[in-house]
Amino acid sequence: MPYLDNRNSIIEVLRSHPEEATRLWVEGGHERPVSAIIEEARKAGVSVRVITRDQFAKRFPGIKSHVCLEREGFRYAEPDALLATIPSMPLPFLSAFDGIYDPQNLGNVIRTAACFSLDALIIPRDNACGVTEAVTNVARGGAEHVRITRVTNLPRYIEELKKRNVFCFGLDEKAGKEVFDMDLTMPLCLVLGGEEGLRRLTRQRCDMLLSIPASVDFPSLNVASAFAIAAYEATRQRRIKK
Amino acid sequence: MPYLDNRNSIIEVLRSHPEEATRLWVEGGHERPVSAIIEEARKAGVSVRVITRDQFAKRFPGIKSHVCLEREGFRYAEPDALLATIPSMPLPFLSAFDGIYDPQNLGNVIRTAACFSLDALIIPRDNACGVTEAVTNVARGGAEHVRITRVTNLPRYIEELKKRNVFCFGLDEKAGKEVFDMDLTMPLCLVLGGEEGLRRLTRQRCDMLLSIPASVDFPSLNVASAFAIAAYEATRQRRIKK
Repeated sequence: MPYLDNRNSIIEVLRSHPEEATRLWVEGGHERPVSAIIEEARKAGVSVRVITRDQFAKRFPGIKSHVCLEREGFRYAEPDALLATIPSMPLPFLSAFDGIYDPQNLGNVIRTAACFSLDALIIPRDNACGVTEAVTNVARGGAEHVRITRVTNLPRYIEELKKRNVFCFGLDEKAGKEVFDMDLTMPLCLVLGGEEGLRRLTRQRCDMLLSIPASVDFPSLNVASAFAIAAYEATRQRRIKK
Repeated sequence: MPYLDNRNSIIEVLRSHPEEATRLWVEGGHERPVSAIIEEARKAGVSVRVITRDQFAKRFPGIKSHVCLEREGFRYAEPDALLATIPSMPLPFLSAFDGIYDPQNLGNVIRTAACFSLDALIIPRDNACGVTEAVTNVARGGAEHVRITRVTNLPRYIEELKKRNVFCFGLDEKAGKEVFDMDLTMPLCLVLGGEEGLRRLTRQRCDMLLSIPASVDFPSLNVASAFAIAAYEATRQRRIKK
């Protein structure tokens, strides 16, 4: 069900599963009667769009509640719930992405994460691609095998992971230490940028930065390829250590 | 120059650089006067399309020769010339693909090959994606850094590589030996399937088959990701050995 128009149901989703909500649509002129819902959306960090009566009628034909919640089909894991399960993971293996925009890249990342049995992927809620239908198609079923959570503040979430003894290593082409020179057999979160590399605040939170051995003339890798390499390297080290 | 309409030039390209030609277009009713060109195209394995006079006039306005050769913008390396340069490579590092159809995948493969300084990529001439503009865009400049050749018969080309002491290792998810268990520091050609895996004849020509350590439940990787991992593993081993 991509849209929800019952007011009580909307409030319920905003309170209990805000991670499923993508946007609240309100018919202009009806902001006051649905102000409680708008307030709830704001608290949940869900963006609110007020559109004209005509636009609303066109977009949501037959809906009389003057308000509509757009939901994503994909079931995200809750960020706090994921943190709570870390102690029960035999050897945590996570990866966080600082804003992938291309559905093709995110889909491939999810497929690779499933292939290497990662415990979870962490992606930003804003300014990034979500797990859309295009993404799950590219992942070829991988989205059913790996938990994915969306967080509003990735640097802060990295801090939470570190408090739980998960080492957070950022991938950065300029890093002096190469990925195969580092022990990756501890509880681990690989941190990667989106198409444009790591953001400053995210980079600063990482325990260490690692690079992939690349050509000096052309040190450029697609984010999904870089992730595949790093996830493979961690898996290789863990297999050898067993 | 994407199109060639001078009959002599067309014959010249078909004889000397058939790898640049993608398709011969003939105006219906003029097959007989250009039969020598059609014959040359068939010999070169270039497909021939006969279209109506109106279609021809619409597609090639102002062209009076009744025949037109479509060329690709990308300059492929010649298969034999590539074989001839193998002895001069310090430590040959090649990769062959058994039919990638998706431009996104081929573009990412080229980008990764440039990043790991591969000497060349080998792709099939038929039933596979060529190096189109979409592909070079995805490769983000990588196509300028790696030689790419197209061959009509990949299994036979693998035989030629083996005669020149290049070890040809196929990537196959069902292989018992894992990629990190094999010495990849010799002259090497990594052989990968397209989106659907290795074809039987190609697989049979490989010196050995290797797998990537994957989840039992979901052992599926995108071809560009699998290539990134294998190319990285070979690079890692070569760096360590130095």
